[in-house]
Parts: sequence; C-alpha cells; structure tokens
Amino acid sequence: MNSPRIILLAHGSSDKRWRTTFEELAAPTLASVDGARVAYMELAEPSMDTVIREGVTEGITEFTIIPLFLAAGRHLRKDVPEMIKELEQSHGASIQLTGPIGESPLLGQAIRDIVRDQLEETTP
Amino acid sequence: MNSPRIILLAHGSSDKRWRTTFEELAAPTLASVDGARVAYMELAEPSMDTVIREGVTEGITEFTIIPLFLAAGRHLRKDVPEMIKELEQSHGASIQLTGPIGESPLLGQAIRDIVRDQLEETTP
Repeated sequence: MNSPRIILLAHGSSDKRWRTTFEELAAPTLASVDGARVAYMELAEPSMDTVIREGVTEGITEFTIIPLFLAAGRHLRKDVPEMIKELEQSHGASIQLTGPIGESPLLGQAIRDIVRDQLEETTP
Repeated sequence: MNSPRIILLAHGSSDKRWRTTFEELAAPTLASVDGARVAYMELAEPSMDTVIREGVTEGITEFTIIPLFLAAGRHLRKDVPEMIKELEQSHGASIQLTGPIGESPLLGQAIRDIVRDQLEETTP
C-alpha cells in the first residue's frame, strides 16, 4: 500500500526571497519524506496542477495537501477547496486537504523555542 | 538588567477563528516568557501601539518584536519598520524587529514533524 504523496502548499509570491524562505522551510520535510513536493497556490510555479499532474503521470492517485499557512482564512476555507475539487475531476486523483501547520500544537512549541533563542541573543 | 519585552506580532484579521489560531500558537510562549504579549499589525486589537503604550506605562523601554509570519513580504520589509519608527518616536521606546519565525531553522524542523504525524494518521 502506497502512502499518499505529500504536497506542502504555500501561498506563492513573485518575490524570489519569499519563495526561498518557503523552500528552506520545506527542505527538512523534502529530505525525510519520500516524494514530498512544494506547490504554490498562485503567483509561482510549480502550481498544484503541475505537481498533481506530475504525480499522476508517475502512477500516484492519492495526495495529501498540507498548507504552509499559520491560520485558515478565505484561501484555505474557500479558494483551495474549490481548486482541489477541480483538480480531482481533471486528474482523476483523490486529494485530501489537512488543516494549516499553524493548527498543530508542535508549531506553538517551536515558536516558544525560537523566542527563547532570540532572548538569549538579545539579553546582555 | 531587564530583558526587552517580547511582542509576538501577527498580521490580524476580523475573523475570530483566525485570531484564535494565533492565540493558541502564542500560548506556549506567553506561558514561558515573562511579560510576553501578542499584538496585531492591523484589523484586530491589541495593536502594536496598545501593547507598547502599556509596556511604557509599566516602565519598560526596550521591546523586541518577533513576527508570526512565515516569510517577509511587503508588510515586514516596509510597513512594519515604518510603524516601528513612529512608535519609537511617540512612546520614547527602543523597538527591535527580528526576522519572521519562518526564517528560523527550528520552524522547518517542526514542519517536518507535523508532516510525519500527518503521515502516521493517514497511512493505513
């Protein structure tokens, strides 16, 4: 039984520095999860369509999209689910959308650790 | 010597569910860093102005703002630095702005752990 292909979904931006930050954020996941990919909702490639198409060509039919967003706003509540419905129809794939990473307790703990590191740097 | 007061800066939204996610993200930090606060850049209270004013009233003059943003876009490169300059002048405070949490390697590691948890849930 194959695992679903993991897609880390970022918003996307035409700013290369912005994309570089997301590529670095995704790097530990891409290094440890076979086949995992980054995709952008808009303004950058690869799009979700590109990544799903590529997977289907490889014979993958199940995908799990994990949003690299801190919280769910209009994009995750409305736009992305609509895009997924269309992608499922056009590619014959099954696509699951999870909550954004910011809804995981692990992220709040990481923020606490980042703040502690910051305090050690700034406290005389 | 006092540490600077830590302010976790979120974008802000009129959507209560969105703010709740950020309050939960901030909770481990607020529980472990004395005096730490959440502030919103726009669309929600408390604003940066409210939180800085409150700190100055308590005798605090040094603040460190840590953005709860995954990457730096126009807000963090331009809008927030301009707001900080005005806040420093109006409150006589010294305010340091750090990079967004998404630029810390700890965050990419947390994302990897979140994806692993997700895989364990979805893999038969």
